[in-house]
Amino acid sequence: MTTEQLYAHILSKQSFLCVGLDTDIAKIPAHLLHETDPVFAFNKAIIDATADLCVAYKPNLAFYESMGVRGWGAFEKTIRYIKDNYPDQFIIADAKRGDIGNTSEMYARTFFDELDIDAVTVAPYMGEDSVRPFLRPGKWVILLALTSNKGSRDFQLIEDKEGTPLFERVLSVSQQWATEEQMMYVVGATQGRMFEDVRKLAPRHFLLVPGIGAQGGSLTDVCKYGMHDRCGLLVNSSRAILYADSSERFSEAAREAAAAVQQEMQKELAKRVKS
Amino acid sequence: MTTEQLYAHILSKQSFLCVGLDTDIAKIPAHLLHETDPVFAFNKAIIDATADLCVAYKPNLAFYESMGVRGWGAFEKTIRYIKDNYPDQFIIADAKRGDIGNTSEMYARTFFDELDIDAVTVAPYMGEDSVRPFLRPGKWVILLALTSNKGSRDFQLIEDKEGTPLFERVLSVSQQWATEEQMMYVVGATQGRMFEDVRKLAPRHFLLVPGIGAQGGSLTDVCKYGMHDRCGLLVNSSRAILYADSSERFSEAAREAAAAVQQEMQKELAKRVKS
Repeated sequence: MTTEQLYAHILSKQSFLCVGLDTDIAKIPAHLLHETDPVFAFNKAIIDATADLCVAYKPNLAFYESMGVRGWGAFEKTIRYIKDNYPDQFIIADAKRGDIGNTSEMYARTFFDELDIDAVTVAPYMGEDSVRPFLRPGKWVILLALTSNKGSRDFQLIEDKEGTPLFERVLSVSQQWATEEQMMYVVGATQGRMFEDVRKLAPRHFLLVPGIGAQGGSLTDVCKYGMHDRCGLLVNSSRAILYADSSERFSEAAREAAAAVQQEMQKELAKRVKS
Repeated sequence: MTTEQLYAHILSKQSFLCVGLDTDIAKIPAHLLHETDPVFAFNKAIIDATADLCVAYKPNLAFYESMGVRGWGAFEKTIRYIKDNYPDQFIIADAKRGDIGNTSEMYARTFFDELDIDAVTVAPYMGEDSVRPFLRPGKWVILLALTSNKGSRDFQLIEDKEGTPLFERVLSVSQQWATEEQMMYVVGATQGRMFEDVRKLAPRHFLLVPGIGAQGGSLTDVCKYGMHDRCGLLVNSSRAILYADSSERFSEAAREAAAAVQQEMQKELAKRVKS
């Protein structure tokens, strides 16, 4: 999917919501546990309930791997279900991978060749040759820059001799590897005004923003400091949507939660984005 | 497995070899492709041929994930096979994970609770709360410090205002999170004399050292600059052992390759380690 296609989807849906499919079998409604594949049944219901309100889905690999072979089956079925039924959705494998070249190449093969996913999240610590194998025509690397968690301060904010924090170095160095048509950055919603620093270095890139909802980030602040005139944001919500309700009406509740976010997003788009 | 148990295994086997199970279905001998599970059949043969020459196995998750559900099946069978037949082997899931707390927790559940693996490699970029969920009694975090690839220079060597490179910061900060009975560090064999810098900060920790063989690192240098008086090294070789030969005698060739490394290791142990 190209940048222009993403811009168009955001405008037509008036949403830049990404629904994070962090599906935890311990948290899904009890009545689904009788299904052959409860995790897939849950995902299918969530997807059907939210697809017109969001532009992207982001399954988090950890939640599927924790269930071994069954989990991988549910992950693959989920990807296929989205591609078959909602082909305009941007699919992100939240994997945070990154390894020596031949290993990163294997991960790229999994996500891009086998599953035809649009984007993979990648950790920058191992540098250029750990990221390059993920750069494929029509596919996206979403590189961790400034994450949403408390530990983001441990290393990402360390300043070098010129006073440049590590995450800024990641933003600038990685732009030598890929254009803004191939790379996005993860910037946590909890980072507030730091979005201004990110935008100085990456004014046009798409940013994938986790951390609203359960993690406490503010959508208003993210838009105020991070949105550009064609949006340039994909804001993720996982738990607040998936687990809005644990009864048989979980998917309606998920839809209501997603709709509430979408309505806020529509207002932000009206304020800041030229249509 | 405790540090003392690892020291004992190294002494009794006169080896600190870790065999990396980076099993690529495109590279395994053709006659195995008729097996129900070729990857597991290959791993089983390699393990049986090398178990008395090494102290650890390190399956690299990327290679299994690239085959989806079948790959996860082969991965799980491999772990179970080692645990059932060679219970003294230290098993490392080379996963390079690291995510926000609840996600790292899911990965920890997969590798430690479900599969009872001894250690997981973890990337440090997201900081303390991304690493802590992996700290479990009797289990190990192996944190990336100074990797073996060219890209290790992109960020790991960036110096802060006091001239401390990032990998040294990772070594010192992470010691506030875990003792040397719970944490090891990845240091690439290609880093030569930089092992001296690592040992200044982590004199007693175990180091997991990839990069001899196909990647060109020298075992002699690793031992000269990185070994302490009880060894404190696990040196990994993957491709040079697994793919020593592609014919029906692949497992004998793998054994010969592993034996050659073990013999070198025995000499290094005689020189530097008190028995």
